[in-house]
Amino acid sequence: MSTVAPIKDSQSDPRVKAVFDDIRATRKTDFVNNLWQALAFDPTLLETTWAEVKRLMATPSTLDPLTKELIYIAVSVANGCGYCVHSHTAAARAKGMSGAQHAELMAIIGLAAKTNHLATALQVELDPVFDAGRQ
Amino acid sequence: MSTVAPIKDSQSDPRVKAVFDDIRATRKTDFVNNLWQALAFDPTLLETTWAEVKRLMATPSTLDPLTKELIYIAVSVANGCGYCVHSHTAAARAKGMSGAQHAELMAIIGLAAKTNHLATALQVELDPVFDAGRQ
Amino acid sequence: MSTVAPIKDSQSDPRVKAVFDDIRATRKTDFVNNLWQALAFDPTLLETTWAEVKRLMATPSTLDPLTKELIYIAVSVANGCGYCVHSHTAAARAKGMSGAQHAELMAIIGLAAKTNHLATALQVELDPVFDAGRQ
Amino acid sequence: MSTVAPIKDSQSDPRVKAVFDDIRATRKTDFVNNLWQALAFDPTLLETTWAEVKRLMATPSTLDPLTKELIYIAVSVANGCGYCVHSHTAAARAKGMSGAQHAELMAIIGLAAKTNHLATALQVELDPVFDAGRQ
Amino acid sequence: MSTVAPIKDSQSDPRVKAVFDDIRATRKTDFVNNLWQALAFDPTLLETTWAEVKRLMATPSTLDPLTKELIYIAVSVANGCGYCVHSHTAAARAKGMSGAQHAELMAIIGLAAKTNHLATALQVELDPVFDAGRQ
Amino acid sequence: MSTVAPIKDSQSDPRVKAVFDDIRATRKTDFVNNLWQALAFDPTLLETTWAEVKRLMATPSTLDPLTKELIYIAVSVANGCGYCVHSHTAAARAKGMSGAQHAELMAIIGLAAKTNHLATALQVELDPVFDAGRQ
Repeated sequence: MSTVAPIKDSQSDPRVKAVFDDIRATRKTDFVNNLWQALAFDPTLLETTWAEVKRLMATPSTLDPLTKELIYIAVSVANGCGYCVHSHTAAARAKGMSGAQHAELMAIIGLAAKTNHLATALQVELDPVFDAGRQ
Repeated sequence: MSTVAPIKDSQSDPRVKAVFDDIRATRKTDFVNNLWQALAFDPTLLETTWAEVKRLMATPSTLDPLTKELIYIAVSVANGCGYCVHSHTAAARAKGMSGAQHAELMAIIGLAAKTNHLATALQVELDPVFDAGRQ
Repeated sequence: MSTVAPIKDSQSDPRVKAVFDDIRATRKTDFVNNLWQALAFDPTLLETTWAEVKRLMATPSTLDPLTKELIYIAVSVANGCGYCVHSHTAAARAKGMSGAQHAELMAIIGLAAKTNHLATALQVELDPVFDAGRQ
Repeated sequence: MSTVAPIKDSQSDPRVKAVFDDIRATRKTDFVNNLWQALAFDPTLLETTWAEVKRLMATPSTLDPLTKELIYIAVSVANGCGYCVHSHTAAARAKGMSGAQHAELMAIIGLAAKTNHLATALQVELDPVFDAGRQ
Repeated sequence: MSTVAPIKDSQSDPRVKAVFDDIRATRKTDFVNNLWQALAFDPTLLETTWAEVKRLMATPSTLDPLTKELIYIAVSVANGCGYCVHSHTAAARAKGMSGAQHAELMAIIGLAAKTNHLATALQVELDPVFDAGRQ
Repeated sequence: MSTVAPIKDSQSDPRVKAVFDDIRATRKTDFVNNLWQALAFDPTLLETTWAEVKRLMATPSTLDPLTKELIYIAVSVANGCGYCVHSHTAAARAKGMSGAQHAELMAIIGLAAKTNHLATALQVELDPVFDAGRQ
């Protein structure tokens, strides 16, 4: 099920076709996963979202590609997005995540969630030393 | 403000003292931040929480120390824990996070939050290829 | 799957029947969606929930019916309720939401999620000018 | 800071006065906490919110008063509402919550948060036996 | 679907076998639900998670077993974990939760969610009287 | 407190100066609120975030300016971003939100949060009629 109807033909709209072609070229695969199929109901939404994903996730930068996927998974888990957890776990594996690293990611996410809830439940006051604005 | 009264003297309870001493020795600093001061209202809660943090965050493992902090920050932001965001950003900086890496972390967290909400808003169906249980 | 057993016969309990009849009359349709079928396991919960939905969503007020649905979708997405996203997107469409408006709703939800996470990640301090209590 | 201006005089609007009087009588105290002061900017919002809180939290029912507060705290922590965590922790203490019970509440909330994140991160499939709709 | 492949044989790894045997003995049933099957991809993660669940949920303490399940459900709902809501609702029922108690739990969770959002939307300031640190 | 140090002089970096000037010109005010001051620690993050906010929130489109602010507030409340709730409530008021509309927004956000939690707590199954992909 979905809240938007699937596009009928990704070849007929030149803007959709251009994005799908770029996804395929960037990822070196013919597969275009369902998130992009769904976003294609609005070419502007598709173009701007893909441009941001490509710029941040598929361009060399100060964080290595696997680290970026681990961060993405962490946010997606905490936000409860099942689709995103599935797709980025697959991406992390494709970028070399080992089983041991996956298990460690799970353990850290679980620990962070626990201490997040404890700090909120205890309403712990900020230590002034954590303020980056101090001189 | 806080939902538990601060402990009066961390030296008087030997279990609290032992954890605080271990925090200081592990982190090579005299500083014990407020989360641990708050958890000290119950020595068992303090001991078990610290043991888990020490095992996962302060022990060499398959993920490097900075990557672990970045994951911790990502979860904490998505869970809206201001205290945790402050303390782990300080920790990441102490472990070498550069300004450029911090900016990139921000950008990826922001992008993940956006696509998390888009995938949920569109109720995108799972691609079978993402199932790790397939043979 | 569900955590409550479906009611066997909505006609046999007069309180359930009265609410279902009112849902049908208010919405001018025979269809009673699964949320109400599930809530029917407890007539009081069913009655109070429907009374609040009817008062706020099906009564003329200072916000127009479509705007109210857009707000409802926005909350439901951020809270990760797939059922609610599906049902209120269908309701918004029934109340005239165009494809362009749907795309714009998606873009704003995505942007808000991004800046929410950025403001939390940076722990931005409040500007005093935003305080409604100032004189 | 707040997003609504405080009411000037809770005595001047008879609907606000009636709710504040009922809060004082129900709770047997002169104190009316800030949530109600803020809701008073709209008498209807104040009346309907208080009526629901009174019906569910201040009326004898199948769950005892302390258990109801513990549930309220649990939801408030997971939703990240600092105000609510503060006010309901105070209420739980007033209803007899011991320090040991408070510590146990913290530990269970922390554990639930951890396993919530693990189940979401692993995208664990539902066991059919959990379906209440099975015959 | 799932993000980890199911283990092939829970008998072949002695650490997995030991945990599964303890789950069966503790719960007096042959059934081991899918969360534990999934966690078994990493024996350490399985052992530590089960040890914490057993210590907090299956050991007599200051809160009774049903109250602990109600708290667990409340957190799981607010965190949007469908799997956890299903499994802990089943557990609560097995520990004696009546239909009336279930309905009341639903009503309180719904009310807490509403007032959580209201307090956040109004950015209600903390009442100093709620500070547990005051003397 | 904040997790980034405030920039020393918004005039010295031409990219920061250009964004701040555009914010002032677009909003017809000299005031640049703290979110932009914080984002200025990284000019690229500042530029891309402002470009998206300007395109979606400050450009005529299919949704009117006030409706867009109401949606923004709704997401921000559900995501628990206090800063965002404050700034967008002020923006909504500047765009004409009346007290009655504000109260109605509060009531709908509260109701949505309640039914979101109820639907999740009951794990209500999707009605096939809500699927936009049906033919």
